[in-house]
Amino acid sequence: MNWAIISLVVSSLALGIAAYFYYWVSKLPTAEGKLDSIGKLIRQGSFTFLKREYKILTIFVLIVSLIILLFYPSPFWDGSIAENLKMVIAYILGSVFSAFAGAVGISIATIANVKAATAAKKGLAPSFMAGFRGGAVMGMAVVGTSLAGPALLYLITGDSGIVLAFSFGASTLALFAKAGGGIFTKTADIAADLTGKVELGIAEDDPRNPAVIADNVGDNVGDVAGMGADLFDSNVASIAAAMVIAATLGQIQLLFCFGALGLFSSIIGVLVARVGKHGDPGKALNSGTYLTCTIFGFLTLAACLIWNYELRLWGAAIVGMLAGVAIGITSDFFTGDDKTPVKMVARACQSGPAFTILSGFSYGLLSSFPSLAGIGIATLVSYKLCEPLGSNYALLGISVAAIGMLSIVGMIISNDAYGPIVDNARGVAEMSDLGEDVIEITDKLDAAGNTSKAITKGFAVGAAGLTVIALLSAFAEIISNAGMEFNGFDLMNPLVFFGMLIGAAVPAVFSAMLMMGVNRNSQKMVKEIHRQFDTIEGLKEGRDGVSPEYNKCIDIATIGSLKELIPAGLVAILTTLLVGFIGGINAVGGYLAGNIISGLLLAILMDNAGGLWDNAKKYIESGHFGGKGSDAHKAAVIGDTVGDPFKDTAGPSINTQITVVSLVASLAATLFMACSLF
Amino acid sequence: MNWAIISLVVSSLALGIAAYFYYWVSKLPTAEGKLDSIGKLIRQGSFTFLKREYKILTIFVLIVSLIILLFYPSPFWDGSIAENLKMVIAYILGSVFSAFAGAVGISIATIANVKAATAAKKGLAPSFMAGFRGGAVMGMAVVGTSLAGPALLYLITGDSGIVLAFSFGASTLALFAKAGGGIFTKTADIAADLTGKVELGIAEDDPRNPAVIADNVGDNVGDVAGMGADLFDSNVASIAAAMVIAATLGQIQLLFCFGALGLFSSIIGVLVARVGKHGDPGKALNSGTYLTCTIFGFLTLAACLIWNYELRLWGAAIVGMLAGVAIGITSDFFTGDDKTPVKMVARACQSGPAFTILSGFSYGLLSSFPSLAGIGIATLVSYKLCEPLGSNYALLGISVAAIGMLSIVGMIISNDAYGPIVDNARGVAEMSDLGEDVIEITDKLDAAGNTSKAITKGFAVGAAGLTVIALLSAFAEIISNAGMEFNGFDLMNPLVFFGMLIGAAVPAVFSAMLMMGVNRNSQKMVKEIHRQFDTIEGLKEGRDGVSPEYNKCIDIATIGSLKELIPAGLVAILTTLLVGFIGGINAVGGYLAGNIISGLLLAILMDNAGGLWDNAKKYIESGHFGGKGSDAHKAAVIGDTVGDPFKDTAGPSINTQITVVSLVASLAATLFMACSLF
Repeated sequence: MNWAIISLVVSSLALGIAAYFYYWVSKLPTAEGKLDSIGKLIRQGSFTFLKREYKILTIFVLIVSLIILLFYPSPFWDGSIAENLKMVIAYILGSVFSAFAGAVGISIATIANVKAATAAKKGLAPSFMAGFRGGAVMGMAVVGTSLAGPALLYLITGDSGIVLAFSFGASTLALFAKAGGGIFTKTADIAADLTGKVELGIAEDDPRNPAVIADNVGDNVGDVAGMGADLFDSNVASIAAAMVIAATLGQIQLLFCFGALGLFSSIIGVLVARVGKHGDPGKALNSGTYLTCTIFGFLTLAACLIWNYELRLWGAAIVGMLAGVAIGITSDFFTGDDKTPVKMVARACQSGPAFTILSGFSYGLLSSFPSLAGIGIATLVSYKLCEPLGSNYALLGISVAAIGMLSIVGMIISNDAYGPIVDNARGVAEMSDLGEDVIEITDKLDAAGNTSKAITKGFAVGAAGLTVIALLSAFAEIISNAGMEFNGFDLMNPLVFFGMLIGAAVPAVFSAMLMMGVNRNSQKMVKEIHRQFDTIEGLKEGRDGVSPEYNKCIDIATIGSLKELIPAGLVAILTTLLVGFIGGINAVGGYLAGNIISGLLLAILMDNAGGLWDNAKKYIESGHFGGKGSDAHKAAVIGDTVGDPFKDTAGPSINTQITVVSLVASLAATLFMACSLF
Repeated sequence: MNWAIISLVVSSLALGIAAYFYYWVSKLPTAEGKLDSIGKLIRQGSFTFLKREYKILTIFVLIVSLIILLFYPSPFWDGSIAENLKMVIAYILGSVFSAFAGAVGISIATIANVKAATAAKKGLAPSFMAGFRGGAVMGMAVVGTSLAGPALLYLITGDSGIVLAFSFGASTLALFAKAGGGIFTKTADIAADLTGKVELGIAEDDPRNPAVIADNVGDNVGDVAGMGADLFDSNVASIAAAMVIAATLGQIQLLFCFGALGLFSSIIGVLVARVGKHGDPGKALNSGTYLTCTIFGFLTLAACLIWNYELRLWGAAIVGMLAGVAIGITSDFFTGDDKTPVKMVARACQSGPAFTILSGFSYGLLSSFPSLAGIGIATLVSYKLCEPLGSNYALLGISVAAIGMLSIVGMIISNDAYGPIVDNARGVAEMSDLGEDVIEITDKLDAAGNTSKAITKGFAVGAAGLTVIALLSAFAEIISNAGMEFNGFDLMNPLVFFGMLIGAAVPAVFSAMLMMGVNRNSQKMVKEIHRQFDTIEGLKEGRDGVSPEYNKCIDIATIGSLKELIPAGLVAILTTLLVGFIGGINAVGGYLAGNIISGLLLAILMDNAGGLWDNAKKYIESGHFGGKGSDAHKAAVIGDTVGDPFKDTAGPSINTQITVVSLVASLAATLFMACSLF
């Protein structure tokens, strides 16, 4: 069996389904009235951001391409320019594939929101289908392209190392999409909340607010495209890392086998997922996920038995998958609004904002334990499971666990993209006065989206964790293959420890820079909103025919987010190079480990604390501890505002930062070996 | 030269100076009026806590002693009971010495506060001297006993390993003193602020508030005794780690030489420090520190030249010392109220509490970089400097850097204990109506104390960092000495990585448990305060002769803090044992590294963010951005309340947690080797 070819076939199938869903959703009716024009505003705004982002990205990609052309895998003066050119092409392909998936996602999300709002007039089930199938377009497009890319490159070149360059291309895009989008979405969200809800006391999606369209745009560019790019990145990186290790063992076919069957299972899960007339949308999302897991488990087992693959590697994949589900469930425990932590934080809100912050932060810290332990156990078990096959198989076991965890990523992204679509549907329904019934239905759909979002974030952290551990193995493999004497990274080697300490500081600095960026940027937007309220006559009062200049706010968010993102990304990349050229590969090995450890810790803390504050606020709004307008609610709103950049900007961007840094290290490994201070 | 004997001599000298200062301070006059009775209330409260703490501690120490007697260094059935008994004695001595230093510190601090308040009537200089010499009693007592203990044990037994047990005794006490004291002080502080400042709008130290004495007691038990125990712990641990490595190299005399000369330099620094009539108390504290550093540098250089010690080891000590100073200066930059970060956070307060939190948190994250890099560079440079002498010398270099960093700890503790004494002096002056002039002077002294406190905390983190890295080396040395085949802890070994992930989660869980403890406990105290205000007639109005039941609040803080601390401590210790018995020494090696990395990161983040919020509040109170009572001020108060348990409970307790865990691992190393699952 040539599983690389089958991967291409299954990928095409996924892209076909994406196209079909795209067509299906866009043929749904749109309600009369303002809805259409508001939807178009959001769509235009999203593409404004996307175009500008892709323009800057093009420059960035070209610069990096030039560097690769000159130096990677070997300096051009060694006469390897043809080899280098191959890498450049792979790198560019990686970013183009990811960019394509992102654009598709944005496009369908900005159609599906309006359709879901319209469908809500007919009831919950049709609205759910519009939202979910819209999300599934993204899910299928992302996983289809992220599997097709490596398969295609491998079929053409037969070279496994080239996929690292493809993966780096995807990471470059993810950095822009996730971190840039994250800054965009929170800039708009915070500015809209501060001026609208807090100062004027108007509703969240009141069309008088100049930032309201930017806010809805933000949901699409940050949550849909950003999260998609992040998981695209993890998925490709896990395949790339596994391929580096699998190459010497002749096990590459197995990777494509698992990848293809994982995607195939997701396709079935996506096709089957639906909700009854009075059904529970949350259950529909979850049962789709569990179904995908089960199918994946059986299909891969059958494949191993039929084609005689090592069952231990199958076990590693299952271990990874189970760990992913377990970590997701943990995140749900810490952020679900029917669980103890949310209730306790909501209770603490009664004692004022300081206690809101302290209790949410404490739970966030606590939540790191099960997730880190889950990643640790998955690493250990998958390694030990495969160790009897040989020590390189043991390392491959970790990579396969990462692939196993990411096997269901198609389903996960579909669930995740569903969230912002129905959230947006709620927004446009409110702005277009579609009535209370519609808002109630979209609210229900939105609540289910929040839970699945929390699970996805936990899952994304887990996947990033296992993937970067696999990348660390790939880094070690590259060093071994380069013929250097290499006995692993010894913690007692001070170069390793030095690297570890520096590596640990990087996610902290990176996330701080992003949050400070949100802060600065949203203050700029608040100023602009004040200007509009002060100078546009009749705007505050909502006089007919008067509308705010939405585009100005979108511009501020767009320019600011890209401006703030680049320095943060450069700090991470340049520090990696600096550590490498100072301390050599030992320092980089430690650096990667420190980066992973501290990155995962901070990401989990921020994701979960942020989700917790959000849901504690919602819990109070649903009538507990005094409900809306009470002092507890005010404290909860402050907690939520702190949590916003935690959970939607900094936390999830750290995943990308870790992957980018790991790939930079792997790509530059031979350079570090050739010249370093120590 | 037998430097162990000289260490004893210098220690005795330090204790003599402590006794003299104790006598000198207690002979100072006390002002007439309420001052004496208020001072006595605080003193009684502090000793109430201390007695109860020591009672529980005794039980704890006895249980651990029994475990040591039965199992350490070898199980009793191997007939090693006499050897084990030696360890028990060392362990008990360690806790008793540290307990003694703590009791002395509390005793003098609760005398010196009243004396400094009285002296402030005569001016700044006499008041400074009362505060500083009070602090110096603590400094001299801590460093005297922490040097005398190891020297004594070494002289009697000639065994270097026994000092680990002594160190573990000191750590046990530090855990109780720092974490328990930290919970106590913030319980009282938060409860007093919430009910007094926020609800009633009365001043911070208004005697009507039932929590006000508990609050002042907290400063003593948390900041004086707690910080003292923490640095006692680090100091002893650094000596213990170095002795394990130095033993095989025959370099133990050098360690005592550096220790003795460091203490001697601190003695001179303490004796010389004074402030002119209109001088700057901050400068007086700092110039004392710099003087100590300089003297230490010259004396140790001379010693190395005269007695022919390796100059490279001298270099390592200097590298450590410089790193300590650099890290301290960094902390000062991030928390000093004349520096950019504080001003920026104060500015952010204008946009509300959420921005206060976000900006302070971001700066806290940023501040981790220079400190971690400082520790990393010190580790690397001291290792590389000593590497030409042999690989074991290189590891010794790291330990000597830790000793060098801690050489000036006598001066550091003196400066640090000065802070809460003058803070308390300000409190008792206000409660006793000593007049505006006195309060103004004590305010000035207090401000200098805050800066030195920030520097000390940075220094304490740096010292803990280098010390635990040295302890990791000691752990490796113990494994090597046990005759096991051992090639270091390879990051590519999944057991190491598994341990690292678990180890990284422990400081997060530990600090979360402490903060939740503060939360729970202060809510209990708030209830009690409300009860008193409701049931004691005339209390709210401040009727003459009516006073609150201060003791009830002290009781709540005491019992609660000890109750909350024990589970947190047990989690850290039991997880260590669990990881060891599951994953063996490799997992423990990784566990310690993960613990160090994440612990340092969180400690720096919490220390600096907390200090930053505190000073941002003070900056606003001094008239910026609307001053007291403005919205910015309210936001700053919320930031400060969040920062309180960050900087005074969780952050500094993490230092102790890391040390305790490292020592547990070293002590149990042979057990892990004998039986573990993997």
